[in-house]
Amino acid sequence: MRLGTIAETLRCELKGPADLEITGVAGIDEAGPGQLTFVANPKYAPKVKTTRAGAIILKKGAAEAPVPALLADDPYVTFARAIELFYRPPTPTPGIHPTASIAHRVQLGENHSIGANVAIGAGVRIGRNCVIHPNVTIYPFVEIGDDFQAHSNSVVREHCRIGNRVVLQNGAVIGADGFGFAPQPSGIYYKIIQSGIVVLEDDVEIGANTCIDRATVGETRIGKGTKLDNLVQIGHGCRIGENTAMAAQVGLAGSTHVGSRVFLAGQVGAAGHLEIGDGVIAIAQTGIARSVEPGKIISGSPELEFNLWKKNSMLMQKFPEFVQSVKQLKKEVEELRAKVEKTGT
Amino acid sequence: MRLGTIAETLRCELKGPADLEITGVAGIDEAGPGQLTFVANPKYAPKVKTTRAGAIILKKGAAEAPVPALLADDPYVTFARAIELFYRPPTPTPGIHPTASIAHRVQLGENHSIGANVAIGAGVRIGRNCVIHPNVTIYPFVEIGDDFQAHSNSVVREHCRIGNRVVLQNGAVIGADGFGFAPQPSGIYYKIIQSGIVVLEDDVEIGANTCIDRATVGETRIGKGTKLDNLVQIGHGCRIGENTAMAAQVGLAGSTHVGSRVFLAGQVGAAGHLEIGDGVIAIAQTGIARSVEPGKIISGSPELEFNLWKKNSMLMQKFPEFVQSVKQLKKEVEELRAKVEKTGT
Amino acid sequence: MRLGTIAETLRCELKGPADLEITGVAGIDEAGPGQLTFVANPKYAPKVKTTRAGAIILKKGAAEAPVPALLADDPYVTFARAIELFYRPPTPTPGIHPTASIAHRVQLGENHSIGANVAIGAGVRIGRNCVIHPNVTIYPFVEIGDDFQAHSNSVVREHCRIGNRVVLQNGAVIGADGFGFAPQPSGIYYKIIQSGIVVLEDDVEIGANTCIDRATVGETRIGKGTKLDNLVQIGHGCRIGENTAMAAQVGLAGSTHVGSRVFLAGQVGAAGHLEIGDGVIAIAQTGIARSVEPGKIISGSPELEFNLWKKNSMLMQKFPEFVQSVKQLKKEVEELRAKVEKTGT
Repeated sequence: MRLGTIAETLRCELKGPADLEITGVAGIDEAGPGQLTFVANPKYAPKVKTTRAGAIILKKGAAEAPVPALLADDPYVTFARAIELFYRPPTPTPGIHPTASIAHRVQLGENHSIGANVAIGAGVRIGRNCVIHPNVTIYPFVEIGDDFQAHSNSVVREHCRIGNRVVLQNGAVIGADGFGFAPQPSGIYYKIIQSGIVVLEDDVEIGANTCIDRATVGETRIGKGTKLDNLVQIGHGCRIGENTAMAAQVGLAGSTHVGSRVFLAGQVGAAGHLEIGDGVIAIAQTGIARSVEPGKIISGSPELEFNLWKKNSMLMQKFPEFVQSVKQLKKEVEELRAKVEKTGT
Repeated sequence: MRLGTIAETLRCELKGPADLEITGVAGIDEAGPGQLTFVANPKYAPKVKTTRAGAIILKKGAAEAPVPALLADDPYVTFARAIELFYRPPTPTPGIHPTASIAHRVQLGENHSIGANVAIGAGVRIGRNCVIHPNVTIYPFVEIGDDFQAHSNSVVREHCRIGNRVVLQNGAVIGADGFGFAPQPSGIYYKIIQSGIVVLEDDVEIGANTCIDRATVGETRIGKGTKLDNLVQIGHGCRIGENTAMAAQVGLAGSTHVGSRVFLAGQVGAAGHLEIGDGVIAIAQTGIARSVEPGKIISGSPELEFNLWKKNSMLMQKFPEFVQSVKQLKKEVEELRAKVEKTGT
Repeated sequence: MRLGTIAETLRCELKGPADLEITGVAGIDEAGPGQLTFVANPKYAPKVKTTRAGAIILKKGAAEAPVPALLADDPYVTFARAIELFYRPPTPTPGIHPTASIAHRVQLGENHSIGANVAIGAGVRIGRNCVIHPNVTIYPFVEIGDDFQAHSNSVVREHCRIGNRVVLQNGAVIGADGFGFAPQPSGIYYKIIQSGIVVLEDDVEIGANTCIDRATVGETRIGKGTKLDNLVQIGHGCRIGENTAMAAQVGLAGSTHVGSRVFLAGQVGAAGHLEIGDGVIAIAQTGIARSVEPGKIISGSPELEFNLWKKNSMLMQKFPEFVQSVKQLKKEVEELRAKVEKTGT
């Protein structure tokens, strides 16, 4: 594809020859001649000088590049669109694979692709354009909107409700029983039936092997546009707002409410029954033990305000010296006192 | 269902009209007229005043409620039983689905339900009343007791032994190879065959995508009544006692022994070859690096006694000021010494 | 099997009767008469005196044992080989199970075993001697070498490339979409197509329910001989060197490069775009926030040099007393100053 065509399609300003032939896209370190790359993160700006890429997408106003450039308002989104120009997604096979098991009273919208060994339970309703890969299981009475994509080995449990354009990566489990066991005086746990459901709103994406537990009563809800990475755990009765993102291995205990546009980095954990406000950012491995006001940036376990945590972390690098200096001070004060008392007498 | 009937069935004291019609159960925040709710956690006691529920389950002796109440010794267990009154569980389809693959010499007890695409290996024995959902795999020579429930995509590996009334949530993996690799002088790892098994005793429940590794030799054992949440990792050769509970994303390295009635909160990790005594409680994200005496409450990474950890955590909120005050002290002592020496001479 | 035969086969020095009959292998605590055990970890040396085992594998030069012994250079590897002498692995059923779905243009090498309900997509190529257990899904256009073992419910996504002698434990997900979403000014995330692949080099083993994400562009690569435990997360675009090992629940964010012969213990997390050098060791739960020089041993969150972290951890056990002593010092200095000033005037 000619660089000029790419610039037009992506609505970028072109700095360089329109007739340069681009054969694909690649990361800044890997891109070679004929490939288009990008820099969005200022951390990588120095790499522009040494890139072997055929062309580069840069932010408008960036320093001049030694290779042909496409100038964009948002180089990251523009690169995402450039990938789409070159990527040929696998074509789903239309129809229902003969080995799939579709129970009675299932409604499937037009243009569906149901893979091998898929099992769909009684009373399930799915909208148009679904792509359900092999070995997926949809339990009875699930309702799903249009443009559903479910990758192999993902599961949706009974009665859960899923909006439009939802994507489940492989092994995602939507609606397994919440961890509800009432301790009895004997020490034996009494299992509390998890009678609620999970609701995934429109445009949600759930990562591989991530688990969203059904509520004890009522629902666990993931808001519109929210994206969860792999191996995330969402406890029963949690409610997540819109356009929130959680990186891999995050875990929320039950009944915690997370706002919109929140970002929880990898391995963050939150206790149950908390309110985590809109726009909160938690650094990786944060242990959230208390509710968090909107807009806060937090880190540490238990969580601290980010700047305090950062300062503490730096101070911990000198902690033994610091302890040593207190011991030394103690000694000096002792000596000083002896001297003063001597002088005093 | 009439409130009076519910009170009788659940053996509660009724404060209010016996003929009030209850249509379902709900959480304290969501319950509306006609719904029954509960308060067990004292944290939620203030919500009793403002609940819109039709009726509420409270602990005997609790302050009077503005709505009809059922008084119970254990409101949580009573609520659990109330859910059962209204919940209609999905009915498993009896028999063996035509797409299931049952190998030779398999023994299935009466009243079984084997779902679509289930694969059961040679020589497997399963007791009465099993419900095995679609896409479950049972490897050869597994032995399973009565009332087994295996949700979709769960797996039981070869030769493992499972007691009565065991529940596997979706994607649980029982008996995958332990992480056993002997480093050789060349740096190349030598795989150690994991020849042991996993034993799940009666009444164990295993969460979604949780992994219990088979032992190198001998067995990994999960004791009677123990409940593991989602995404938990139990290393090869671990032994867990009875009625222990582990929240999501807990990880135990190999050969660690955990006692009975232990509670490990979310994301707790424990090193290998440890003894964690009966009744131990570990707060979320605790990193257990040493063996723990029975009854201890621990937190932090590495673990500290809980009260010490809590104190440290509070002190860390003032850590920079504290460091500052030591610097200040140092200066003052310096000045003081100068003064003293001057005076002394 | 006679102990003398075992000694010969494993090339050990025999201290004891060659004609002793050994019936199996077991751990040091479990081994009884007729069983062979071992001690490699010096921590367990005291157990030699009290073992009930029939015979024991010890390091050459170890103190004499009260039972017949096999002396080896590497008792751990020797025990691994002893297990092999007694272990009968399950025999895979040759051929393709009738319920497996093999798409068109699939090439399977000789001596394959394809289990029930396996789904293999169009254009897949697999080498000789593969064992693919029930309910595995291989997406289209995957290329796999010889001696591949894929356990139930593992998945390999489209276009990924896998070397020889690779093992996937149950539920492993190779090549799910990376977590790539560009935030837009509206707050709505824009999904970045993950057009890259995953490459697993020869002799890699991937644990149960572990996820290796495909790259946005280019590849995520796991080097030769590297072993990943269960529930590990490898973000898109990571590159891992050779003979590296990661314990359960480790998580790497995207584009991080890990060297060869690295060991990351359980629940370690690493931020994205880091360089972690050859031979690095990270203690359990380490939070790696910065790049790490080769050979370093690190711990803590954020990571510290191991010895410093250990010292800090010990000092934290006295932290409240330490804070108290600073307060005391402050008071003493105050008093001293008052005295000095009095004396001075």
